[in-house]
Amino acid sequence: MGQQVGSGSLCFAEAPFILASASVVGKKEGEGPLAEKFDCIGEDDKFGQDTWEAAESTLQKEALTLALGKANKKPEDMRYLFAGDLLGQLIASSFGLKTFQIPLFGIYGACSTCGEALALAAMTVAAGYADYVATVTSSHFASAEKQFRFPLGYANQRPVAATWTVTGGGAYIVASESILAKSSGNDAPLAKIAGITTGKIVDFGVKDSMNMGAAMAPAACELIAQHLEDFERKPEDYDAIVTGDLGLVGQEILIKLLRDKDIDISGVHEDCGIKIFDNEAQGTGSGGSGCGCAAATLSAHYLPKLANGEWSRILFVPTGALLSTVSFNEGESVPGIAHGVVIESCKK
Amino acid sequence: MGQQVGSGSLCFAEAPFILASASVVGKKEGEGPLAEKFDCIGEDDKFGQDTWEAAESTLQKEALTLALGKANKKPEDMRYLFAGDLLGQLIASSFGLKTFQIPLFGIYGACSTCGEALALAAMTVAAGYADYVATVTSSHFASAEKQFRFPLGYANQRPVAATWTVTGGGAYIVASESILAKSSGNDAPLAKIAGITTGKIVDFGVKDSMNMGAAMAPAACELIAQHLEDFERKPEDYDAIVTGDLGLVGQEILIKLLRDKDIDISGVHEDCGIKIFDNEAQGTGSGGSGCGCAAATLSAHYLPKLANGEWSRILFVPTGALLSTVSFNEGESVPGIAHGVVIESCKK
Repeated sequence: MGQQVGSGSLCFAEAPFILASASVVGKKEGEGPLAEKFDCIGEDDKFGQDTWEAAESTLQKEALTLALGKANKKPEDMRYLFAGDLLGQLIASSFGLKTFQIPLFGIYGACSTCGEALALAAMTVAAGYADYVATVTSSHFASAEKQFRFPLGYANQRPVAATWTVTGGGAYIVASESILAKSSGNDAPLAKIAGITTGKIVDFGVKDSMNMGAAMAPAACELIAQHLEDFERKPEDYDAIVTGDLGLVGQEILIKLLRDKDIDISGVHEDCGIKIFDNEAQGTGSGGSGCGCAAATLSAHYLPKLANGEWSRILFVPTGALLSTVSFNEGESVPGIAHGVVIESCKK
Repeated sequence: MGQQVGSGSLCFAEAPFILASASVVGKKEGEGPLAEKFDCIGEDDKFGQDTWEAAESTLQKEALTLALGKANKKPEDMRYLFAGDLLGQLIASSFGLKTFQIPLFGIYGACSTCGEALALAAMTVAAGYADYVATVTSSHFASAEKQFRFPLGYANQRPVAATWTVTGGGAYIVASESILAKSSGNDAPLAKIAGITTGKIVDFGVKDSMNMGAAMAPAACELIAQHLEDFERKPEDYDAIVTGDLGLVGQEILIKLLRDKDIDISGVHEDCGIKIFDNEAQGTGSGGSGCGCAAATLSAHYLPKLANGEWSRILFVPTGALLSTVSFNEGESVPGIAHGVVIESCKK
C-alpha cells in the first residue's frame, strides 16, 4: 500500500524492491564514460536487424531478457509489464516485447517514460496486485532522428543546444517485499522504490525542437519543487537528484529556475544525459537524451551506488518533451513533463 | 485493494466507482443510431480549431470538462489523470489536457486505450492512492486518416472490411468507495469497476491495415477466454460482453475463434463499433473504430443501462491494433491487444 503525500506524491509503506535491472546500449554509448558499466554494448546500432525500428525492438528484448536472467525469473513470473518508447504508436515496445507474453500496459511520457514505468510498477506491486512486474523503455538515435528530425542520410547539421538521442534501453524487475521475504535469500535486491511524485504538463512556450533541455527544464523544476514540498525534504536529503536528459543547457536552466523558488540543487544535481557521453570528445552537443538515456544510465551507473551502500537515496527525475513532428509543424509549443521516483539503498 | 485472480486479472475488494462520464462526438456520429445519447455533438469536426489535431484536443478537453461538471468536481480534485489517443506521441492528450494541471500518466494501447485507462484508474483508486482519478481517451477520423492512411483530400477508396475511425472521446471520473461513503449522498455513482483482466500482445500475422477487425479479434478472443477462466465465469454471467471496435468482420471472427475454445458468446456479444454507426446508411464499412469509439459508446450507451439497473454486469473489452505507418511500411504484421474491465451496476 501507499500513503498519499501532498498533492501528487505517494510514499510506499512496504516499499517495492528493484530486484534486478539491465542496460543495453549502442556503439557510441559504449565508447563513452560509462562504457564499462553497461551490461551489453551493440557491435553496431542495427543489432542484427534490417531496420532501425527493429533494432530498437531487439534492444528492448535484450534488456528484458538480461534483467530476467539476473533476477533468475522467467517471463511468466512477471504479472504485468509496463513499457514504452519514443516511436509513434510505441512500435519498438509492441514488436520487441510481444514474444514475452506478459500482460502489457503501454505507456508514453516521452523521455520521462522510464520514470512513469517505474512509478506504475511500484504502485502495482505495493498494492499487492503483483509479486513481480517488469518495465522496459528505450530509444534509438537513428529511429528517433528519422521520426523527429531528419533521416541520417541527410547528414544535416545540429545546433549545440541539441541533445543526442541515446541508443539504449533499460529493463527493471520490481518485486514486492513479501515475495522476497518468502524467497530463499538469494534474491538480494538492488534498491527499493520508497515513493513517487507524478508530474503535470508544464508549458513555457518553447518552440525550438532542437533545444529540448529548455523545454523540459521547467517541468523538472515544478516536479522537484512539488516533491520536496510533498515529502517535506531539502535537496541535501538526497545523495543526488538525477534528471533524465536535460543536458548542459537544461541543467543550467533547471538550477536557475529552482533558485528562483529558493531551492538550491546545484550541489546534488546530476543528469543522465550529461553522464552518458563525453560531449566534447563525442560531439554530442548538450548531452544524451531519449527514454533510453535515463533507463540505461540509472541501471548502469546509479543503481550500483545504491546497491553497494555508497549512496542511500536519490530522486530520479526523467523528463519528457511532449511533441510530435505534426504538432511541431503546426506551430505548437513543446510542453514538458517529469516523473519523480525516490530510490533508496537497502543497506542501512 | 485488489485480489490477484488467475494469471492476469484483479478483483477489487472495494470496487471503485465510476462517478460520472461524458461523451463528445463529431457530426457523423451525431447522425448515427446513438445520436440522442451523446452529451455533446460537434457542429463540424473541427471543433472550432484550425487543425484536426487541435480539434481532437478540444474534444478531449470538452469531454473532461463535462465529466467533471457532472461529478461536481474541479480539476484539482483529481489526483491523477490517465489519458491517451491514437496520434504519435499522444499529442491530442498532451495539448488537450495540459491546462487542467492534473498529474498525468500518458498511456497507449491503440484503440484499447479506454480500457487500459479505466483499469489503471481502478487500480489506483482501489489501492487508496487517490480518492478521485480521471481518464480521457479519444480519436478523430481526420487526424487518424492523415496519420495511418491518407489525408482526406486524396479521397481514396476504402474496402468494406475497413472500419471508420470515430471522431469522439470519453472521459470518466473514478472515485473510491470510501470517499463516496463520506460524501453527502448526492453523488450517486453510475456503476462500479469490479475487476480487470489485462491483455497480452496477440499476433496472428495479419498484414492488412484495412482490416483491423481481423487483426484485433484474436486478442479479444484470448482476453475473453482468459477472463472467464480467471474469474471462473461463463458468458451468461454477463448481460453483455462488449468489445470496442471489431466491427462486423471482427465480430464474426471473434465468435468463431471462441467457439473453437468451446466458448459461445454469440448470445451476449456486442461491439461499440457496430452500435455507433448504421453501417449501411452511413457508409462506414465494417463499423466504427478508434479509442474514441469505445470511450464514447460506453459512456453514452452502456453505462446508462448499468446505472438504471436494467443490466447488472458487463465485460468491457476495447481492442487495439498495434501498428504505425512505419511498422506497416516495413512489412510488419499488425498485432492486437485487448483490455478487459468488469463493470457492474450499483443497484442490486
